[in-house]
Amino acid sequence: MSGDIDAGSEFDRGTTAVARDGEPGVYDSALGEGWRIGGGVNGGVLLAIAGRALAAEFGTAEGDRPAHPDPLAISAYYLTPGVPGRATVRTSVARRGRAVSSGQASLLQDDGQGGEVERVRFLATYGDLESGGGDLTTSAQPPDLPPPDGCISSRQAPPDFLKHASLLERLDMRLDPATTGWALGKPSGNGVIRGWLRMADGREPDPLLLLLAVDALPPVAFELGLPGWTPTLELTAHVRARPAPGWLRVNLTNRTLAGGFLEEDAEVWDSEGRLVALSRQLARASAPPQRS
Amino acid sequence: MSGDIDAGSEFDRGTTAVARDGEPGVYDSALGEGWRIGGGVNGGVLLAIAGRALAAEFGTAEGDRPAHPDPLAISAYYLTPGVPGRATVRTSVARRGRAVSSGQASLLQDDGQGGEVERVRFLATYGDLESGGGDLTTSAQPPDLPPPDGCISSRQAPPDFLKHASLLERLDMRLDPATTGWALGKPSGNGVIRGWLRMADGREPDPLLLLLAVDALPPVAFELGLPGWTPTLELTAHVRARPAPGWLRVNLTNRTLAGGFLEEDAEVWDSEGRLVALSRQLARASAPPQRS
Repeated sequence: MSGDIDAGSEFDRGTTAVARDGEPGVYDSALGEGWRIGGGVNGGVLLAIAGRALAAEFGTAEGDRPAHPDPLAISAYYLTPGVPGRATVRTSVARRGRAVSSGQASLLQDDGQGGEVERVRFLATYGDLESGGGDLTTSAQPPDLPPPDGCISSRQAPPDFLKHASLLERLDMRLDPATTGWALGKPSGNGVIRGWLRMADGREPDPLLLLLAVDALPPVAFELGLPGWTPTLELTAHVRARPAPGWLRVNLTNRTLAGGFLEEDAEVWDSEGRLVALSRQLARASAPPQRS
Repeated sequence: MSGDIDAGSEFDRGTTAVARDGEPGVYDSALGEGWRIGGGVNGGVLLAIAGRALAAEFGTAEGDRPAHPDPLAISAYYLTPGVPGRATVRTSVARRGRAVSSGQASLLQDDGQGGEVERVRFLATYGDLESGGGDLTTSAQPPDLPPPDGCISSRQAPPDFLKHASLLERLDMRLDPATTGWALGKPSGNGVIRGWLRMADGREPDPLLLLLAVDALPPVAFELGLPGWTPTLELTAHVRARPAPGWLRVNLTNRTLAGGFLEEDAEVWDSEGRLVALSRQLARASAPPQRS
C-alpha cells in the first residue's frame, strides 16, 4: 500500500508524514539535506510527502466507502523553495466519495519569525488503482533505450553539479547518451531526456515513489540549451497503475517554449513495459541561453 | 485583457464572475441552461468562470507587483456535477509575487437545504503572457485538417444527442470526418478527435475562452468505443500565448485506458498556427463499451 514505510529505505525516511497527535489532518515531516537540487529541495520529494499525507487521510476504508490509497491525480503549485528542515503538511478533505476522494494539502515550514511560510499547495484525487481490475490498454510505446550499462550514470556528472544535487546520491540514474549533449555543453535542442531510474538502496517503486520519479531527471530545459535553474510553477501527476519491481524508464519531452515558460512532460514505464505514470509541469525558463 | 466582458457575447454572459459587495474574494455567477452537456454543465465553462474570478483577483497591478491577468496554469478538481442556477466562487490568495501570483477557488451552489455544495475546487498560477515578449518556439505541428467546410458540423449531430448538449448551440464546431466514426457507431479506436472551433456568435478567442476550448469537443473516449458519460475528475490547462482572432484548431488524444480511467490531452492552436493552450484531463471511463 502507498503509505507503508520501509524504515530502511532512504526514500521512506526522506518523505515521512507522521500524524500529529490531537490535530486531525496535520502531519509532521522533514526535508532532508540529502534531497537538494539547485536552490531547493527536489519538487518530487515535496510531492511525495504530500502524497503520503493524503494517502493516510484516504487510504483507510470508512463505513461503506472503500479505501482510496492511490494518488490518481495530484497537482502541486510551487510557491516558495523548500529548504532542509522541519515541515508541516496540513490536509483538508474536499469530498469523500465511493469511487474516489478529493482533498488538498499545504506544505509549510517555519519562517524563522515564529510564523509559517507555505512552500507548496496541492489538490488531489485518490482512488484504488486495483478496483478497475488493473486492466491497461495503451497505444503508447516505452522509450527505446540502450541497456543501463550502456547509459551514462548520474555518478559521472561533473563534481560541481553533484555538489548542488545531493538528490543524485539517492538515485541510480542512467541517461541515454543520445540525450546528454547538455552535459558536454552541446545540447541537442531536441527537448528530450530519457533514462533508467531506480533507488540507489534498492527500494522498489510504488505509487508514492512514482511521484518522485516524474521530477527526478535533469530538467529537459538542459537539452534546449537552457542550463540555468528552471523553477517549477505547477506539476500535475497521474498515477495509472501500480508499478512492477525493478528499473523504471522515464521519458521527458518539451515541445514549446513560450513567453518565458516551458512545459515538461514525463512518462514513467515499469519493468514490465507498462505506462505507470504521466506528468506535465510548467516551468519558468532561465533568462538567456548560456554555453559553457 | 482576460477579465473584459463583451456583454453581447454568449460566452461572457455565460461565465460571469461579479465581485460581491462587502465580501472580498467572493464572486457571484450563474450556470446557464445553455451550457449543458450530458448530466451537468460543461466543465470548461466552470473552469472559465473560476478563471475569470481569479483574473479579477490578480489582474490589477498593486504597488510594485505588475498585473497578472493570464491563467498560466489552472487545475480543476471536479467534485459534483454543476447544474443550471446560481453559483458562488470563493477565491483565496496563496501568494502574490512579482513574476506570478497563485491562488485557489471553489465553485459552490445551493444544496437546496440552506447550505452550499462544492462543485469544483481550483488551484491556479497567473502571470502576464506578454511579459516574456510573447516569443514562442515549438516543435509541435498543428493538426492537419480539411477546411471547415469539408468537416462535419456539430449541428449535424443526432437530435437525441443535441437534446443533452445545449452547449453545442453556442459553438461553431467542425470535426474532421476521419475522427467522427463514433457518431456512426463505428469508432476508429484510435483515440483522436480533432476539429475547428469558434463561438457561434463570433466572439473572438482570448485566454479565458481557451479554458472552454480545451473541454468543448466530444470526449475522445467516444472514438475508443466508450460512448457513455466520462466524467472528468481533474483537468489542468496551461495557456501559453494570447490567441489571434479567428478559428481555433483543437486536437484531442488519448493513449492509455487503465484501471477504468483514461487521460484526454488537448492542444489548441490559433489561426496563426501557434500552440496557444495545452491541457490534460483524467476521466472515469463508463463501464462496458456499447455499440448502437
